[in-house]
Amino acid sequence: MRIDILTVLPEMLESPLNCSILKRAQDKGLVEIAVHNLREYTTNKHRKVDDYPFGGEAGMVMQVEPVDRAIAWLREQRDYDEVIFTSPDGEQFDQPMANTLSLCENIIILCGHYKGVDYRIREHLITKEISIGDYVLTGGEIPAVVIADAVVRLIPGAIGDEQSALSDSFQDNLLAPPVYTRPAEYKGWRVPDILLSGHKAKIDDWKHEQALARTRLLRPDLLGED
Amino acid sequence: MRIDILTVLPEMLESPLNCSILKRAQDKGLVEIAVHNLREYTTNKHRKVDDYPFGGEAGMVMQVEPVDRAIAWLREQRDYDEVIFTSPDGEQFDQPMANTLSLCENIIILCGHYKGVDYRIREHLITKEISIGDYVLTGGEIPAVVIADAVVRLIPGAIGDEQSALSDSFQDNLLAPPVYTRPAEYKGWRVPDILLSGHKAKIDDWKHEQALARTRLLRPDLLGED
Repeated sequence: MRIDILTVLPEMLESPLNCSILKRAQDKGLVEIAVHNLREYTTNKHRKVDDYPFGGEAGMVMQVEPVDRAIAWLREQRDYDEVIFTSPDGEQFDQPMANTLSLCENIIILCGHYKGVDYRIREHLITKEISIGDYVLTGGEIPAVVIADAVVRLIPGAIGDEQSALSDSFQDNLLAPPVYTRPAEYKGWRVPDILLSGHKAKIDDWKHEQALARTRLLRPDLLGED
Repeated sequence: MRIDILTVLPEMLESPLNCSILKRAQDKGLVEIAVHNLREYTTNKHRKVDDYPFGGEAGMVMQVEPVDRAIAWLREQRDYDEVIFTSPDGEQFDQPMANTLSLCENIIILCGHYKGVDYRIREHLITKEISIGDYVLTGGEIPAVVIADAVVRLIPGAIGDEQSALSDSFQDNLLAPPVYTRPAEYKGWRVPDILLSGHKAKIDDWKHEQALARTRLLRPDLLGED
């Protein structure tokens, strides 16, 4: 899989893309992540990528030309499954969408910045708009990392123990059950006795009951019960 | 405002916390962000912070002791409004929650990692559990950046043009209207004529209509119409 990220702040992406699972998956050749500075696709001498909005809104707007040139240059080299733009009014990102994207061969993620991007970019160049949640961030860089992390960890081999991803929250529409590790008692706070019992079948039942109870309490919508 | 972030991967946070608005807000003295490596709060010689889960689950679990010691050490120095843990089964993060958190004086954000954190941490040490969305990430570091960015940009003075934050999506339960910038025509794609008209009142009406129409189409839930 290959992920191309278009941004005006490539330096913001440096450490999260080069740590932990994203680093390991790149080192293993499971994913190639390329970050492109949109300023390199400008034609003006100041490498400006933004301008004032028409109609007198506050804030600056990212221009259509450098984005169009960057996407066209990438499309010349390979086919892309999706050209993604992260925006609070996009389709809500969730685990099924992460699963689907993990099957793509090549995707582009455009990080918005400033007040927003010229709407013609969204009308003519973007194939999928994704929101990571109902809140406003300074730019699309962190959402791009969220999407990359959620997607790449689903590629077989990316995380050490694949069983671990299968038992994550949401993969079966249940929240994960509580987990505990040593010591069995800390400051009088004890681990549930069942987990220390060694009865594998009973422990599995307990975990499933806990997962179901927590989901029913906290997120009945996942069970279709709200 | 002060934000203390507890993590096993401090290096992952380096670039996003030192770019853009988060950097500017720290440089202006509007927020102090301190990143703490949980390994410094261990008592074992290998600085191990994780161990196998009780009951035979796959994956590793973050231990209670280093987290307890780190939080206790911070609490000795100042009062905290919230001790936040980021988890996919927490309360959904949204713009009203960002507004509330932006009024806090001191908050701690604990980044989970591995398969999860010992549940006793959540029962006894955490005051608020937040989910940034219905998807699973490798760790809580990126969610901590999401929360920090969404919150800090609401502190007066953090973004250059405060009017710009007021007209963001969600602040009035409406999605933002489309924005456009120069050139007025690019490859035959034209900016709507109204925005070039110079009629301020008509432009404002158009923006409001567009915001309402986009919200009704894409997110009727925000209008209570779904």
